[in-house]
Amino acid sequence: MPVPAIDPFHAIAISALAHQLESQGRSIIHLEFGQPSTPAPQGAIKRAHHVLDTDPMGYWESEALKQRIATHYVEQYGITVAPERIILTCGASAALVLAISSCFVPGQSVALARPGYVAYRNTLRALHVGAQEIPCGPETRFGLTAQAIGALDPAPAGVIVASPANPTGTILSPDTLRDIAALCHQRGMVLISDEIYHGLSYGQPAKSMLEFAPDALVVNSFSKYFSMAPWRLGWLVVPDHLIGAARARMGNLFLPPSALSQHAALAAFDCNAELQAHVATYRRNRDLFLEALPAMGLNRLAPPDGAFYIYADIRHLTDDSLAFCRQLLLDTGVACAPGIDFDPVDGRHFIRFSFAASTALVKEALARMIPWFAARQTGGNAKT
Amino acid sequence: MPVPAIDPFHAIAISALAHQLESQGRSIIHLEFGQPSTPAPQGAIKRAHHVLDTDPMGYWESEALKQRIATHYVEQYGITVAPERIILTCGASAALVLAISSCFVPGQSVALARPGYVAYRNTLRALHVGAQEIPCGPETRFGLTAQAIGALDPAPAGVIVASPANPTGTILSPDTLRDIAALCHQRGMVLISDEIYHGLSYGQPAKSMLEFAPDALVVNSFSKYFSMAPWRLGWLVVPDHLIGAARARMGNLFLPPSALSQHAALAAFDCNAELQAHVATYRRNRDLFLEALPAMGLNRLAPPDGAFYIYADIRHLTDDSLAFCRQLLLDTGVACAPGIDFDPVDGRHFIRFSFAASTALVKEALARMIPWFAARQTGGNAKT
Repeated sequence: MPVPAIDPFHAIAISALAHQLESQGRSIIHLEFGQPSTPAPQGAIKRAHHVLDTDPMGYWESEALKQRIATHYVEQYGITVAPERIILTCGASAALVLAISSCFVPGQSVALARPGYVAYRNTLRALHVGAQEIPCGPETRFGLTAQAIGALDPAPAGVIVASPANPTGTILSPDTLRDIAALCHQRGMVLISDEIYHGLSYGQPAKSMLEFAPDALVVNSFSKYFSMAPWRLGWLVVPDHLIGAARARMGNLFLPPSALSQHAALAAFDCNAELQAHVATYRRNRDLFLEALPAMGLNRLAPPDGAFYIYADIRHLTDDSLAFCRQLLLDTGVACAPGIDFDPVDGRHFIRFSFAASTALVKEALARMIPWFAARQTGGNAKT
Repeated sequence: MPVPAIDPFHAIAISALAHQLESQGRSIIHLEFGQPSTPAPQGAIKRAHHVLDTDPMGYWESEALKQRIATHYVEQYGITVAPERIILTCGASAALVLAISSCFVPGQSVALARPGYVAYRNTLRALHVGAQEIPCGPETRFGLTAQAIGALDPAPAGVIVASPANPTGTILSPDTLRDIAALCHQRGMVLISDEIYHGLSYGQPAKSMLEFAPDALVVNSFSKYFSMAPWRLGWLVVPDHLIGAARARMGNLFLPPSALSQHAALAAFDCNAELQAHVATYRRNRDLFLEALPAMGLNRLAPPDGAFYIYADIRHLTDDSLAFCRQLLLDTGVACAPGIDFDPVDGRHFIRFSFAASTALVKEALARMIPWFAARQTGGNAKT
């Protein structure tokens, strides 16, 4: 058995080309990665300065931060999560590794939506766990349903659910979450819920899977709502019976995350005014995109309920989303992610725009893209 | 197949008890964990302050830091390592996960020394790779030899070597490294070298395995010599043919490490005077321990060549090193690590002292421990 081959993230190649063009003097707008363009909130930065000056620090897990996260579950969702069930990690990525490693063994398989965040599939693969990808189209707003999971044969050992989802930003309804929770409970399937985009929603706030499945594993992080992606701090909530397994893996595979990041993150919980202003920016950016998309000829998409992504169908323009993103970048200086990063089957027909940039940059990106897309709509070069 | 059970790190239980006693007003000296008690070097902290004030940061891999690490290999060992071969990680732990995941599949096994750093065994286990532990005693100063590896039947798919080693601090001779490199090359075994304690040596500096095996994987970090453990930054050097596999895993399982830590680490390379002063402290502490150990009746050990550990045989005093450490802590307030963390077979007869504390604290710890050990040497309670 060879070591499994893991696909690279193609948006990285687009980004590298974008930076190369930038270094040649081109004006580039970065919409290719899913990260806020804003720094950590001022309170977090101030706290970091203070800790740097006063605390030599050491390997550390902040009990105060775990307690604060537990309080967050009460405030946000009205649910009780004991702090012992919270494991602090070097970002949501490590939390996902912990979750998969604590629950599954090689030969088992896990259900997940296609399109979806590429690391689900690749992390499962790297850990020798199978992925049962469920094609999810516009009819379910690209989201999983209990029916689709229940129809899988053989039944998977677990399910990864993401809401708001990447790359689409769509949110699963409370009924859908409840149905998936009930199905997993009934069939003994492990339920992992990625809630990294919670806090970023434009209609109803997303519900936590823990409201419906108290024994679900929940992945979350300070990277999105809290605008602290480069601080690499996330967490995993596990049910009581997995605390030992998950904590032992944390201590061996990772050790605790950055002490400075933990200090700063605790302070970030007191920065809601600044963070809500970011959400207001994303809401404006989303509206600008939704207004502009018809002029770009992009009509086949599910308007995002949350996160900061537009995932648009471009099959009338290309069969090769990577080449398409490259051409778009070369012609307009706007960098985006090709759908193949999120869907190995149909992704060649999709493009993902991240609207986590400033409103000024989103306006400029749209001003450049509208004529470019319009020309391709009607011109002779309909397909790259 | 059940999810593999991973042992907890028992020193954490000792540390928890130590903190509990501390909160009750007891004077505690922490020698249980392998981390410097000093903060990051001043230049690194200064750089972090500057970056916090001027850079919003984002997901990022510092090309400058990879270049600086490559230069470090030239300066320190006289060898050339292309920066593309260096992968920055959230600490050496994540580097080890990357290395194992990029090289081995379930069912294969890897040779390693017993005693050894507990995370080798546990990370292999979590990734479903077997561990072929080679008992290493005082006759080889607790170190691996090519002969011992070569005698394994079945032959392992790979070898993990650590020099200076944890928990013993012993350094493998250049001849031993050369012989192990030759054996691995000859038999097609993957060679992983953990060089996290490089820079901390009290006789000859340790050689890098890359001097003998250019295709070895090397794990290192800013946690020990650079005194930046809580900043969670390490690196993995891979041979050319593994760059793609290892980088794809980094991008999916981890994403890049803390941007702030990368900025600070680059500055830490310019802080050698401060860092060499730490090494001088460790050297004094080591000398104090080596002078005191006879009075404590601890004669069966290999004096450490590097790192900051003493691994002493206490079989005349106990068959239960965890209970022994607990009693030592309760009686004297000195917290140490039980040998069972490093050796599941013979570790019940060993204790590890970390001397990375200040010299004043090491003196105080020895002043408390000498009479305690002496009383047990001669008294009626020779065994706990």
